[in-house]
This record gives sequence, C-alpha cells and structure tokens, in this order.
Amino acid sequence: MNTGAEMHALVERLYPLCRSITGDGVRRTLEIVGEYLPLRLYEVPTGTQVFDWTVPKEWNISDAWIADSEGKRVVDFAESSLHVVSYSVPVSATMSLAELREHLHTLPDQPSLVPYRTSYYSPDWGFCLSQNALDALPDGDYEVRIDSTLEDGHLTYAEHVVPGEVTDEVIVSCHVCHPSLANDNLAGIAVATFLARELAQREPYYTYRFLFVPGTIGSITWLARNAERIGKVKHGLVLACAGDPGSLTYKKSRRGDAEIDRVVQHVLAEREHTVVDFSPYGYDERQFCSPGFNLGVGSLTRTPYAGYPEYHTSADNPDFVTAQAMADTLAACRDAFSVLDRNRRYVNLSPYGEPQLGKRGLYGSLGGRSDAKQAQLAMLWVLNLSDGDHTLLDIAQRSGIAFDAVAAAADALYAAGLLAPAPPARE
Amino acid sequence: MNTGAEMHALVERLYPLCRSITGDGVRRTLEIVGEYLPLRLYEVPTGTQVFDWTVPKEWNISDAWIADSEGKRVVDFAESSLHVVSYSVPVSATMSLAELREHLHTLPDQPSLVPYRTSYYSPDWGFCLSQNALDALPDGDYEVRIDSTLEDGHLTYAEHVVPGEVTDEVIVSCHVCHPSLANDNLAGIAVATFLARELAQREPYYTYRFLFVPGTIGSITWLARNAERIGKVKHGLVLACAGDPGSLTYKKSRRGDAEIDRVVQHVLAEREHTVVDFSPYGYDERQFCSPGFNLGVGSLTRTPYAGYPEYHTSADNPDFVTAQAMADTLAACRDAFSVLDRNRRYVNLSPYGEPQLGKRGLYGSLGGRSDAKQAQLAMLWVLNLSDGDHTLLDIAQRSGIAFDAVAAAADALYAAGLLAPAPPARE
Amino acid sequence: MNTGAEMHALVERLYPLCRSITGDGVRRTLEIVGEYLPLRLYEVPTGTQVFDWTVPKEWNISDAWIADSEGKRVVDFAESSLHVVSYSVPVSATMSLAELREHLHTLPDQPSLVPYRTSYYSPDWGFCLSQNALDALPDGDYEVRIDSTLEDGHLTYAEHVVPGEVTDEVIVSCHVCHPSLANDNLAGIAVATFLARELAQREPYYTYRFLFVPGTIGSITWLARNAERIGKVKHGLVLACAGDPGSLTYKKSRRGDAEIDRVVQHVLAEREHTVVDFSPYGYDERQFCSPGFNLGVGSLTRTPYAGYPEYHTSADNPDFVTAQAMADTLAACRDAFSVLDRNRRYVNLSPYGEPQLGKRGLYGSLGGRSDAKQAQLAMLWVLNLSDGDHTLLDIAQRSGIAFDAVAAAADALYAAGLLAPAPPARE
Repeated sequence: MNTGAEMHALVERLYPLCRSITGDGVRRTLEIVGEYLPLRLYEVPTGTQVFDWTVPKEWNISDAWIADSEGKRVVDFAESSLHVVSYSVPVSATMSLAELREHLHTLPDQPSLVPYRTSYYSPDWGFCLSQNALDALPDGDYEVRIDSTLEDGHLTYAEHVVPGEVTDEVIVSCHVCHPSLANDNLAGIAVATFLARELAQREPYYTYRFLFVPGTIGSITWLARNAERIGKVKHGLVLACAGDPGSLTYKKSRRGDAEIDRVVQHVLAEREHTVVDFSPYGYDERQFCSPGFNLGVGSLTRTPYAGYPEYHTSADNPDFVTAQAMADTLAACRDAFSVLDRNRRYVNLSPYGEPQLGKRGLYGSLGGRSDAKQAQLAMLWVLNLSDGDHTLLDIAQRSGIAFDAVAAAADALYAAGLLAPAPPARE
Repeated sequence: MNTGAEMHALVERLYPLCRSITGDGVRRTLEIVGEYLPLRLYEVPTGTQVFDWTVPKEWNISDAWIADSEGKRVVDFAESSLHVVSYSVPVSATMSLAELREHLHTLPDQPSLVPYRTSYYSPDWGFCLSQNALDALPDGDYEVRIDSTLEDGHLTYAEHVVPGEVTDEVIVSCHVCHPSLANDNLAGIAVATFLARELAQREPYYTYRFLFVPGTIGSITWLARNAERIGKVKHGLVLACAGDPGSLTYKKSRRGDAEIDRVVQHVLAEREHTVVDFSPYGYDERQFCSPGFNLGVGSLTRTPYAGYPEYHTSADNPDFVTAQAMADTLAACRDAFSVLDRNRRYVNLSPYGEPQLGKRGLYGSLGGRSDAKQAQLAMLWVLNLSDGDHTLLDIAQRSGIAFDAVAAAADALYAAGLLAPAPPARE
Repeated sequence: MNTGAEMHALVERLYPLCRSITGDGVRRTLEIVGEYLPLRLYEVPTGTQVFDWTVPKEWNISDAWIADSEGKRVVDFAESSLHVVSYSVPVSATMSLAELREHLHTLPDQPSLVPYRTSYYSPDWGFCLSQNALDALPDGDYEVRIDSTLEDGHLTYAEHVVPGEVTDEVIVSCHVCHPSLANDNLAGIAVATFLARELAQREPYYTYRFLFVPGTIGSITWLARNAERIGKVKHGLVLACAGDPGSLTYKKSRRGDAEIDRVVQHVLAEREHTVVDFSPYGYDERQFCSPGFNLGVGSLTRTPYAGYPEYHTSADNPDFVTAQAMADTLAACRDAFSVLDRNRRYVNLSPYGEPQLGKRGLYGSLGGRSDAKQAQLAMLWVLNLSDGDHTLLDIAQRSGIAFDAVAAAADALYAAGLLAPAPPARE
C-alpha cells in the first residue's frame, strides 16, 4: 500500500471517533496515531491557567438521542458524532418540537447535510441534523437524552520529536479536536503522521517537533507550557484541510517574509497553488502568530479554511479526501523541509577576489559532468553572495539556479574549506 | 441656508476687498472672518527679521486710475482690485501710451480677462487690464494716478485654535493675500472657517490650529515666531483652490509617507480624486515642508495651483466657485480629520495567544448585531497587529475592514482592558 | 581623423599581437597604448602571492605550426595568434592525426571559424583551427612545433591616472590579455585610452584611474597590491566589448544601487540600451565586486559577454567593430562621468522656509533667459532636497528636471552662499 493509501486508511479509522477539545475521543485518536508514530502524551488538569485562558472541564459522552413519541430514535449520536453539539451538558427531558427546535441546528441552504456545532465556553446543549430530517419531524413530544459528563479532568495533547543536528526547532502543528470531519482535520493528522515518519528516516538539520493539539486552547496550552522553548522555534507550519481535491494554499506567517514563507513559496512555485496573506482567522497559526510570539509559522492547506461547501458538515467525510491529494500535500511538505533544512548562510573565507577553484580541483572534479557549467556558475554565485547575509535560497532565487544545485555547490565549497557557517543573523 | 451656501456667501462678501501681503485689506478680511469664528490677530512690525526674510513695508491703496485726454477713466481700481499691480508705488503723472505700455499687463491669449500681478519686493508700479481694453486705447497722453502708501507698518495674520485632548497639533493653513480672486483663495478661507466651526462642535483629539496668513512671507513669519511650537505640529493641511468644480487633488507632503498623506489618500480613495507628489512649488506647503522643518503637511485643492484657465485672472470670480464644491472639500477635510483623530497605535496587553474574548462578553455583546462577524474579525485584527508599530489605519488597510469598524473594535478592546496606548513612535 | 576612426586604427594596430595574461605581447600592447597616453607600467614577479592566487610563470611564444608529411604548414601561428592555445607548453614532435586530434580545438557549429582557447593553470598544449581546415587534413603523420617558453618572469599591467580635485577615485578597468580578438577586448582598450585622454583635458572632480590589466589574475593582482587604496575607490566601470554594432548594455554592480549604477542608467535612459543585474560571471567586475570588496563597479559593454556569435572566435576581428560604435561607447562614458563628477550632496544653509532668492539677484539674474522658469524651479528643488541625503541626481530624477539644469542651479546657489557640501554619507 502506498503512502497515500495508508494515510487514507488512517483517516477512515479515525473518522468515527467523537473528538472534542478534551476527552477520551482525543485520547483514542492519539492512541491510534501512536501505532504509526511514537507519541508522548501530555495531560493538563482542568483549571490550569494558560495565559488568558483556563483549561476547561473535560467533556465525555457515551450516548445521545432524540426519540419520538413511539420511542423511535430520530436523531442518534451513534450514527454520527456530529449529531451532538460538542460540549453539550447532560440532558434527560421530554419536550414539544417547538421547545426542542431551540436546540436544533440545521443548514437550510444545504438541506441534506448535518452541520458541526460547538459550545465550549458557555453551558448549553443541542443536536445537529439535516434540514430534511427536521422537516420530516411531526409535531408532538420528543424524548431527549444526552449522556455526557463535564467534569474536572484533563486536556490531552501529544508530541513527536524528530531530533536534528541542531536544537533549533521546526514545529508542525495539527488540530485533533474535530469529530467526524475528514478534511478538517483527519487528513492533516494523517499527513503530519507520515511526514514525521519520513523525517525520522533521515537525519534532519533542524529538530522537528510535531504537535497534535486541540485547536486554540491546545496550542495556547502548548505555548504556555513551553515558554522556554519558544526561542528555539525558528520555523513552523500548521497543517489542516490536507486532503481535499483542490490545489495547495499557503497562508503566510504574520511576518510575511519569514524564512518558512520564502521556502514554501519557492517549492510551490512550480505547482498550481495559491498564496494568501496572513489573517488572524483560521487555524492555530492565529496563536503562533499572536504578537507576543510572532513566530515564523505559516499554514498549509489545500482548499483553505471555510473555503469549500463541505466545510464543517457531514459531507466532509472520508469520500471527500483522496489518497492522491494527501500524498501531494505530503510531498510539498517534504520538498519544503528539504530546502529549509539546507538553507544556510555562509561566509566566504576567501572573499577578496575569486578564490582559485582550479587548484582545489573544483573545476577538474566537475569536468566530466554534463552539468559542469551550471555547477561552476553555482559555485561562483555562492562565493559571491556568501557574505553572511544571503541564504542559499536567496542565492538560488537571485541566480535563477535550482536550489539543489546551489546547495551542492555550497557543500563542495565547504568541503574545500572555502566557506564557514555564518554567525546567526540579527533579528 | 446650508453650509455650502454660507461659504459661498462669505466668498462673495470678501471678494471686492483689495488684499495684499500686508495692509488694511487683510485686516478687513480677517474682521469679516471673525464674525464667523473668533480669531486672534497678530501684527508684526515692518523690519522684523523672519528667518532669511524681512517683514516688508505695509502697503495700502485708496484709489488708482488711468484717464484719457478727456479725463475719462479707462482703467479704474474702483472697478476691480486686480487693476493695480499689488505693491505699486504711488504715481501721479501724464505720459504717452507708448510710455504707459511699459507698465500695462495683459493676457494676449485670454484677451477679455484681466491678469493678477504683484511686485512685492522690487519697487515698481503698474496696471492690469484686458488685452481688448488695451487694444481700444487710442494713442495720446494719459493721466496716471496711484494713491498708494508704502510705509512702516505691520504684517497681519490670524489664528483660531480648537483645543484638543492633547497638545499635539494639526495646522490648517490658508492664504489671505490674494485680492479679488475667488477660488484662489477665498474658497480656501471659507472652507477653513467652516471647518474650524465644525471641529469646535466636537472635542477633537488633536489641537487644531487654523492659520490665516499671507502667502510665503506670512507662513515664514508664523514659523519664525512659533519655533517652540513646531515640535508639537504633527500634521497639517494647506487649503487652497477649494471651490472650483474640478475633483479633489491631494499633494503629498515632502515626506511622502507622513500620516496625513496616508489618511487623506485613504478617505479620498472612494472619491474621484488625484494624488500628486510633493514639489517645492505651489502654496505654503513649500514653507512647512522646507528641509529645516519637513513637517507632515500636505495640500488639498480641487483643480491644483495654476491648473485652470481662470487661474490668476478676473475670471476667478464668485461665479467660478460653487457651494457644492466647497461643501465637498469641507466633507473631505472632515472625513480626513475624523480618521486622523482616531488613528492611534495600541499595545495588546494579552499578546501571548489570543485573549479569551468570550469571558469578557466581547462575543456576546455583539451577538445581536448584524455586523457581528465583521466586528469580531476587526477585534482579532486589532489584537493581532497592536504591537505598538501598527496604527489603526494600518490595520484597516491590511485587513480590508473599514476604518470605522476597526476603530470601534479598538474602543471595545480598550474598554475591556486589553489594549494600552502605545508609547510614541520613534521618528 | 575623428576619434572613432582613431580608435579603430588603434584596434587594427593592436590586433596582430599575441597577448596573454603575461608576456611580451602585453608589454608591446602597453607600449603602443603608451604612444597615446602616458602609462605607468608595473611588473609583478612570478610566484608573488596575490590573495588566493599566485602570479604564474611568464609565457612567451615565437612560433608554432603543424606541418604535414610534405612539410607544408597546415596550421600556422604566424597567420593568427588564435591558432595556439594560450599558455601552451613547448612541443616538438611528430604524431599521427589521431594522436594530434586530442590537441586540436574547433567549432563544429561554426565550421569556418577558429576558436580562442587557453590553458593557463594546467600545463597543456593545443592548436585551434576551423572545423573545415581540420576536415581537410588527410590521415598521416604531422610534425608539431610550439616554440614557447614558460619561465619565471613577470605579470605586466599599467595604470594611467587623471588627477582630480579630490583623491576619491573612479577606476576604469579593461583587460589586455586576449590575443587577436577585436571586440573582446581591443575596442575596450581603445575606448579606455581615448576616454582617459579626454578626461585629462578637463579638471575632473574625482581622480580617475585607468587600469590596463590581464583578466582575473591581473585585477586580483592590482587589488592585492592596492589594499590601502581600495577605500578611496568610490566608483568604477569595467569596459569590454566596446565596439560591436549592438546597443549598449550596462551590468549593474553587485550592490545594484551604487551611485555608478544610478548614473549610468540615467544617461542611458534616452539611448537604446539594456540593463542587466550583476552576476559573478563576465569580466573583472567579478573581482571588484567580490564580497570582500563589494565595490560600486559596474560593467559597460555593447553586446554583452558571450552574447554574439563572433565571441571568442576569429570572426571577432577588426571588421566586426566599428568606429561609430566605439565613439558611441565613448560618448556614453563621457556623459556618465560628467554626471558622476557633478553629482554632489549639499546642505541648504537656509533651510527654514525658502530663502529669499530675489534679494540675492537669483531671480533677476535669470530674467532675461528663456529657461528662467525651469532654472527657478530647479533652484527650489535643490534647496528643498538639499538636506545632506539627496544627491543632485536624486533631485533631477525626483523633479523630472534635466541633471544639467539641476547642477547649474546648485552652482548658482552655492555661489550665493546658500549651500554647503554635505558631510560624507554614512555607508
């Protein structure tokens, strides 16, 4: 089975679980991901202060339904986790359809679809169903039951770290709080999982830290508990909506010109893609790019947040995401991190005029290669621009030479003792 | 009577007066403006050194004419103040038409119009008349008479101050030295007058200082006498040609990216308008933007300086300017100062991740409003970009959200204790 | 004879000589140039360390040929210096055509032309001939002879200095190492020579230093031996390919916005021309713009390096370059240096408001001139932007007024005591 198919299988496996920002659905999800990738789990107690927020009570649910006067379940949580408003308080009551309607959510414009709704921070309850199903309900009394608990417990998140040559980090974050929604965000979880597996195969330059966190409160919790690590986070990517058939969309970091922004745009340049500016709305880039952190974290999706009609509905199911699309998202991440990992700044140690490449065999050694002329040009460009300010990506873009060729030239020059790593850039 | 009509009535009332850079015409003009707006008058003695200049002698004129051999006045100052070259020395003589011609100014390309001419700084005299009138003069001797005085006296200018919350100032300057010319600059005087009245109705943030000064020597005199105030002048606008039927033109400050430049361009964006770069030619922006001051002062006109055929001719009369055009200029100023006054920079006091808006009622309080979603987005943008560097106008432009909505969001966040005023920007 | 024709005559005179990076061909070339322009010659011994390089052995050649079995010379150095690979070691041997082919260089795609080849830094020998000539050689044994010497000696280069008002320098560099190639670079030598003569006629502001150096090793040698002078080199131009019929091409310095870049682009703006960004490939700008120096040195050519089919072939002969093209290149240099020489930064000594020009006769003195209005505008622009940051070229470009008019205005204002030279810009 190829990687795309494996990712799709993971999506299908995770799909039925009822995830929320806390609770056993998240734990079970991380347990399954853990079969693919060793995860370290963190449990943060209810009531923990995380910056301006407080970790909420833990929510769990075992069953929920609406039954008609004949006892027939007309809405049933067992059929789909979407049927219950997330964080619904427990309910056991009988009421008229008119009373019940106050707690029913539909999509009148998409009458066959069930919406996704939450009420995390104000105590409430509700059911989601299709407009068609609602229209079919006769007047009369209904029995309503939500077997949920909302108690002191924990917020759960997980990390997987791929150690690198340096302790500077790249974070890859995905949200694990959405219930039965495939593109948003099981596809993101799947791509992150297989990306981490791939990275572990090689020895990356940066340390890559994968975060599987509930949206908003999860990333804020992670940030609050990792204050001393933040300075090490040099780059990052929030992965979401990674499996729909649309083309890739990169949303830039708040900085707009962070290295990750340039790198991802560079590797996307030869693909059909869209680039959008940062906005403080979307996924957890909102938190990583809040002004107190302002991290170089962008967001990669296919069709972006709220940009497709299946968004936050029962139509965002495993049929909506494809193995091919997830494989393509994974490939883009792989390419981006491959550039990022080699995108160094060097100092030319022989900066007064050109060094004599011939006496070091840097011409001769290339003589037999068909790409010799480009390799030689790439060396001249690297030597000329290695003043501590230009990265290899800068050099590739200014010279019009492929990044791989520029990086290979830098490797050869470094091996010949003509380059030294540049001191850290002023920020 | 609406404001446009009131302004036009003021133009008509001021039109007959013979203004110059000094003299009773200026005093009478300021006396009439003073009926609309309390003015503080300043009298600066002849001979006062003002930077590189010296306040000149005061010029006054009671009568002037050219009479033909039969005693008939063929050119008569009583008909129009334009007929005499401003600052003409006194003359009483009889001379041939040939001799007289040396002192006659016409517009051969606009033969029915009388030009406007001055000779402030070299002692001379002359008459202005239409080419048609000149062509009709038979040869022969003419009696020439200019009853003027050029004596030690004063340069007169006036100020009106609208006090603000802060002592930082916005100056609004208009020139009061042109004789019977309506667009250049009675319309500017009228708009400044009614703008000041409006501003006094509200309590502005900035202190607004209106300057009614003779061109060049007047603004230089004001600058020389207000050296200690200059540091307080943060923004400014020179108003001229404010009443012709053309669309608005904004001429940027020398800086080109001063806050006033951005603000005026922002409010003009939805109007038909033109923006031109600074040039050291035009009105008193030349002085405010001289390199020793380099103030953030732009210039707002309709058709710009010298850009219409009526410019500096007898055709620039009250019929050329309209109540509607003056009202439109006034509205643009009002809109610009409304943005300028609210265009603050804030610091997000909860910058690590997003603050929890829900617990502060900032979602709920908006729930019933149809613009709730935009208001919520505006709050997220303000929080995200309030790092002390971005103004609310920056945020409006980057987010694409209307300035008013952004400012309202900032007010709500400030009231909730989530924002503090940013320290002054480094300049 | 006009200058263009004189330059062409110099090209024709230099053409037969066998130049290389060292040797008597260079000396004889400089001797001939010395008839037009006093040169100071420098001889740098073999083995001298110059940065990363070592001055090589000196190469001289008296004769070289390939003779067929009947003793007929089928390739003969006496016919063209291109026939021998530059720096060929001495050879005296008889060998089969098959063995000989290893040492023969042709241009299969341009079968009638002889290529130019070198082997400076690896001991080798070879002949260059047309493909047609090679194809006509019957199998059999050939006698091969190269009477060359490769011995300790010197690298030769020359300078001509035109002293200026200031010791800050402009360098004009051309390479003198190519054998019988007219455009690359006898035309460059000719234009440099006559440009230096012209400059000596006037008293330039900058000191102009003309460098006649062998490519790469020559400029590196000059840089190594002039370490203390480098700080004085404010601008520079590498001249090459100065005589072909194509239009002018300016290659920017590595900085991209050096003053020479702006000046040359300004004077080229009204000519047909091309501007290309810096690349570390081409002529000696590679050395002057290496990151340790990063000098403001651009390169002026007509059709650029390797951009024409005659490049590095026997077709780059005196017929390929024209008197008119060289005269045009010379004119562009003259215009550029005329702007560069006058492109100062001033400080307005009366920066608070406009100074009163009238009392200094700066209006009156212009009254009779038809360009009075532009001259007056130019003075206002110079006064307004003379804050120590703007050069006169900045002012010309921002105002849209011709540089000459701006410079004349500055001269008049300087004479009136209204301007002072600005202190050196921070770099």
